Amino acid sequence: MKARQNTRLGQYLMSIKVGVVGAAGFAGIEAVRFIIGHPEFELIAATSNELAGKRLADVYPNFQGCTDLAFASHDDAPLSSCEVVFLAVPHTAAIAQAPALMQAGVSVVDLSADFRLKDPAVYEQWYQVKHTATDLLAQAAFGLPELFRDDLQALAERKASGKAVLVGCAGCYPTATSLAAAPAIRAGLVGDGPIVADAVSGVSGAGKKATERTHYCFADENLEAYGVGNHRHTPEIEQILGIPGRLVFTPHLAPLDRGLLSTVTLPLGDAAVTQEQLNDLYQDFYANDAFVSVLVDGKQPKTSSVAGTNRAHVAAVYNAHANVIVATGAIDNVGKGAAGQAVQCANIICGLSETTGLTAIAIPA
Amino acid sequence: MKARQNTRLGQYLMSIKVGVVGAAGFAGIEAVRFIIGHPEFELIAATSNELAGKRLADVYPNFQGCTDLAFASHDDAPLSSCEVVFLAVPHTAAIAQAPALMQAGVSVVDLSADFRLKDPAVYEQWYQVKHTATDLLAQAAFGLPELFRDDLQALAERKASGKAVLVGCAGCYPTATSLAAAPAIRAGLVGDGPIVADAVSGVSGAGKKATERTHYCFADENLEAYGVGNHRHTPEIEQILGIPGRLVFTPHLAPLDRGLLSTVTLPLGDAAVTQEQLNDLYQDFYANDAFVSVLVDGKQPKTSSVAGTNRAHVAAVYNAHANVIVATGAIDNVGKGAAGQAVQCANIICGLSETTGLTAIAIPA
Amino acid sequence: MKARQNTRLGQYLMSIKVGVVGAAGFAGIEAVRFIIGHPEFELIAATSNELAGKRLADVYPNFQGCTDLAFASHDDAPLSSCEVVFLAVPHTAAIAQAPALMQAGVSVVDLSADFRLKDPAVYEQWYQVKHTATDLLAQAAFGLPELFRDDLQALAERKASGKAVLVGCAGCYPTATSLAAAPAIRAGLVGDGPIVADAVSGVSGAGKKATERTHYCFADENLEAYGVGNHRHTPEIEQILGIPGRLVFTPHLAPLDRGLLSTVTLPLGDAAVTQEQLNDLYQDFYANDAFVSVLVDGKQPKTSSVAGTNRAHVAAVYNAHANVIVATGAIDNVGKGAAGQAVQCANIICGLSETTGLTAIAIPA
Amino acid sequence: MKARQNTRLGQYLMSIKVGVVGAAGFAGIEAVRFIIGHPEFELIAATSNELAGKRLADVYPNFQGCTDLAFASHDDAPLSSCEVVFLAVPHTAAIAQAPALMQAGVSVVDLSADFRLKDPAVYEQWYQVKHTATDLLAQAAFGLPELFRDDLQALAERKASGKAVLVGCAGCYPTATSLAAAPAIRAGLVGDGPIVADAVSGVSGAGKKATERTHYCFADENLEAYGVGNHRHTPEIEQILGIPGRLVFTPHLAPLDRGLLSTVTLPLGDAAVTQEQLNDLYQDFYANDAFVSVLVDGKQPKTSSVAGTNRAHVAAVYNAHANVIVATGAIDNVGKGAAGQAVQCANIICGLSETTGLTAIAIPA
Repeated sequence: MKARQNTRLGQYLMSIKVGVVGAAGFAGIEAVRFIIGHPEFELIAATSNELAGKRLADVYPNFQGCTDLAFASHDDAPLSSCEVVFLAVPHTAAIAQAPALMQAGVSVVDLSADFRLKDPAVYEQWYQVKHTATDLLAQAAFGLPELFRDDLQALAERKASGKAVLVGCAGCYPTATSLAAAPAIRAGLVGDGPIVADAVSGVSGAGKKATERTHYCFADENLEAYGVGNHRHTPEIEQILGIPGRLVFTPHLAPLDRGLLSTVTLPLGDAAVTQEQLNDLYQDFYANDAFVSVLVDGKQPKTSSVAGTNRAHVAAVYNAHANVIVATGAIDNVGKGAAGQAVQCANIICGLSETTGLTAIAIPA
Repeated sequence: MKARQNTRLGQYLMSIKVGVVGAAGFAGIEAVRFIIGHPEFELIAATSNELAGKRLADVYPNFQGCTDLAFASHDDAPLSSCEVVFLAVPHTAAIAQAPALMQAGVSVVDLSADFRLKDPAVYEQWYQVKHTATDLLAQAAFGLPELFRDDLQALAERKASGKAVLVGCAGCYPTATSLAAAPAIRAGLVGDGPIVADAVSGVSGAGKKATERTHYCFADENLEAYGVGNHRHTPEIEQILGIPGRLVFTPHLAPLDRGLLSTVTLPLGDAAVTQEQLNDLYQDFYANDAFVSVLVDGKQPKTSSVAGTNRAHVAAVYNAHANVIVATGAIDNVGKGAAGQAVQCANIICGLSETTGLTAIAIPA
Repeated sequence: MKARQNTRLGQYLMSIKVGVVGAAGFAGIEAVRFIIGHPEFELIAATSNELAGKRLADVYPNFQGCTDLAFASHDDAPLSSCEVVFLAVPHTAAIAQAPALMQAGVSVVDLSADFRLKDPAVYEQWYQVKHTATDLLAQAAFGLPELFRDDLQALAERKASGKAVLVGCAGCYPTATSLAAAPAIRAGLVGDGPIVADAVSGVSGAGKKATERTHYCFADENLEAYGVGNHRHTPEIEQILGIPGRLVFTPHLAPLDRGLLSTVTLPLGDAAVTQEQLNDLYQDFYANDAFVSVLVDGKQPKTSSVAGTNRAHVAAVYNAHANVIVATGAIDNVGKGAAGQAVQCANIICGLSETTGLTAIAIPA
Repeated sequence: MKARQNTRLGQYLMSIKVGVVGAAGFAGIEAVRFIIGHPEFELIAATSNELAGKRLADVYPNFQGCTDLAFASHDDAPLSSCEVVFLAVPHTAAIAQAPALMQAGVSVVDLSADFRLKDPAVYEQWYQVKHTATDLLAQAAFGLPELFRDDLQALAERKASGKAVLVGCAGCYPTATSLAAAPAIRAGLVGDGPIVADAVSGVSGAGKKATERTHYCFADENLEAYGVGNHRHTPEIEQILGIPGRLVFTPHLAPLDRGLLSTVTLPLGDAAVTQEQLNDLYQDFYANDAFVSVLVDGKQPKTSSVAGTNRAHVAAVYNAHANVIVATGAIDNVGKGAAGQAVQCANIICGLSETTGLTAIAIPA
């Protein structure tokens, strides 16, 4: 059992026991990877009903020599012994599972869409299913620390007082898009009219299931848009940025494994802006965020620079030709877009430094 | 020497001698490939000062067993014996070379940017060099047959009368973007405000030169925007579509060889539109265009479906959430975006069927 | 209906009606693509029980604008009206289907493994199923024209006399491996001991079925061996090359769509050999083979040079350090390794020029 | 300045200052990445004459937010203040630089080929240059800990006594090939005749220089052999395995960034062997090696499982058909094949646990 120094109390405590439900999927298994490398978290349960009994390393050979843990069925896993459980499950499954966990005193960091949208009616409109845990929804903090850190820290207080808390982590497209656009929008620079976010994701965003879409021969050497006009991340981004009904969100698939780039075109309002002002605005905005780097001097975010990590790179360019801001954000869709962000949120609610276990640097090239 | 049936005269004539200047680059060598497979064109010159004397097949081994032609230096090549010369050279080089060719009676199909922009002042603003062949510019037809076929057919008449003619072929981004957006814009469906074109290209778009940008290890597993706010295809697209000062054009690079996808967000004007109307509009618009397929029923263009060909796939989706049209266009940036289009234009000015030599179908997957 | 000039008789005849059974898989649909571009073959049936009724272009959008043909169920397809049927089916299915077709007077070009191995006992050992059409097996010619052209031409005679004939086309690994090794082996240059063939294939070799192996995220950025010591192409290669029990064949998977490279290490016998002699030997061997190019001067075959085509590139290097020959062969596993070769064989048995419909050149880069 | 607990002495000491010479290349910058994440090493110099003065993060944006270090010119870098310097330079440059460093008391971990081959005559034969530091060569330990750990530990003793020591790290192909083959060879299982190693590397193995070979459009969708019969890693592998003149080594390039797979065919001697015996042999051989995992049960090493890490996966299969052993080894060519191994060696000579700073796990998929 690992010992840790609780950064809030200055005392040595035991390691924090955590579990991952839905550990066999891409987000779940990446959460497992981050947790195994985490100095304070101890992984005591990784569930997969389908793979129960199989060693992680026999399913995902990257874990060979790294862990002897086996997948457990959901019912056999010691989830109630966890301090925090990560739910890496499809939407509706988190609604089904979170209440019992929280009643057992287990805090939940949910990677699904179930606790992201504050208005149940919006959830029901876009996901075409009734939200049956609206009380928990009201308690949940939105898991995008750079934009909603106060809410997460409030959960930390609450959890420190012995209560189970709930985080609904932001989706991958919302994370990249919002990190790119939020500084300009919050500064009041953006005027009327549609806000266009064209985003491109690697194939891991389509999930582990083997389909024609994820078949190498169909995904390779191909670019295509999908979910045009109806992708479920639309209302989530609008909620984060406070731009109801204004977002034109078009996701695309490109032939890479990890990586997501969102390009957001923001119409300028009456106020003029210079590139220098934009740079200053963005750098100030993220000055205290360890995982967000603002690129200036014409540099543009590259997804390869953040692959496998919890980092985000953003840039904002003043396009004088059409008098708009073009803001770009690059993340690893499974890292900062899912599992990394979940661990970052878990760090916060556990009173740890946000960067604990998340200091990996992407390979240089 | 190949014999051909002139489709205008119904007579058997000799094959049409053609040359490619700048044949060693990606657009030039792809033009060579199309021409070798062309039943009416006979390639008598492929120039590259750098590679003069080397067999094409020794530089590009895909030609092993297909041709014994060698690169010739520009000065040694029998360009004046050609009926048509394709210029696959950097901008300014076409301005330097076209006049002499045309004075020698050789028609020119230019793949560079030199004869695309009708207003020399716009050329000079974006390319930062004076245009020194404005008389030829005035004569040039814009090489995007689906949108400017009449102009090209007028050149065919002129050429049939013995005059040398000049085509300034559209660029890769302008082709995909304009094919996607033109039907809606020409139909008057588009209202005020910025028109956003976010486009993604394969690495061949960056050219044959070995640079960090084109290095496999930097391009692989990476997405990034570039030329944000200042890409030279901006005024070209605005000219084609008649939207001066309104285009927000942001190109991106993705890890594939061939392929370009442009996603264009068009604000709707006062008129309402339905998806069915959009489908009809687009299908009617391209009803007589052999190379453009309109995808409906929620299908989205895939670049893999057109790789290695002169084809384009387009779709237009009515996004009711934000009341805009999202139009997408997929091409092979070196095919329909450069060499294929040049051959298509050459077919037209030579009085051949547009599809001659361009019937290849992309591999299925 | 297309007219054709029968190259044997010098007369104009009607086009040759052909069908593809199993047209939805990668080899089948590539056969369809070659046939659509073939000037003498007319595709009247493309069967897929699963996709019956769907337009090819709606399943494989590369056919948009190229054909209106729809998949037919096996029972509804006019197979008995075909002159030649291509069977792109799993092994055992060809045994089940070939007899009835041939009894109906339809010649069969089989892409499966059912009619490749001359000894039914070997088939039964490696495929673990009894061969129930051994009479047809005895009649079948082996479909690798460069090494067994006489047998195929004998079928052409037989077919010209009105008999249905049967070709069992070579597999992908056997094609590349044998084209690389055959000249040295047939020349008697190879001595005793194991012959090692390490071959690498693109993911299309794993077929259209969506599995973990073919999932983009598992195949991308990965190299691995598979079928070590037990791949079914082992006895086929040994039969072609006449090296029973001597082949160490290890296939590998690499992250590309199309392409197969086989590297064969051949121990030298007593005779000395020089690089020049090897070059001459190989160039002479393939002097009359339009689809095989021998690379010399240190050039090595690249799979990209033959992707999408029926071509093969081979080289043989004398490795003086260890006194062996290292022969390499590159093909497109779905082209020369399957569908292209099938069309080449069909050309031969129909008395057409071997290259008819197969003149495509790979993209330059 | 970081404090560390010296694992040998049980005392808290200051961090170990290290430098990287040639830090701008792929191996050098990956060493930098490992060192930044290393809890005991403090990077005080990263040299690049070409990039001197530029921040690492401005050249390799993966370091944005991770380090403010800038490249230094070789002459300006505080190399003599380092306890260990990593030389990530071309061969001959290490010979030029190592003597002065060692005279200044700095231990050298050389990633080049200069101190690998024990016999200067062999070096001179394969590298075509005279070895001018044969005295140092005699002192150097071979940097492949799993096979030569005693030699490295002897250096640790020597260094602990205050002497500067020298490690010549194994190359990428030799590492994968030798880890795969060594257990069988050292156990005396291998008989006479050629030993064939066909290995495939990702493009990073070709280095950072932008060339046609490393151009995305030429490397993508391509497989090819290179250096057939004359690759310089041949004598290095033969030295490691003790098989002079017997190795047929053929390297290949495949379209991935990181990863190297070597497939070694080992002829069996008189002794019979079973798969179970092979598994036991390999598992025993690597029982105490944290970075080497032996795969059994038909599992084959995947390069994706070790990408970005210092790990190696190996398997040995008894191929009964041809009575040989087929051993495979997968590494990250820049990790265990270069920078990771260098850090592992540095850990050993510094008396640290071998795994210090090298515990990263590859992404799951």
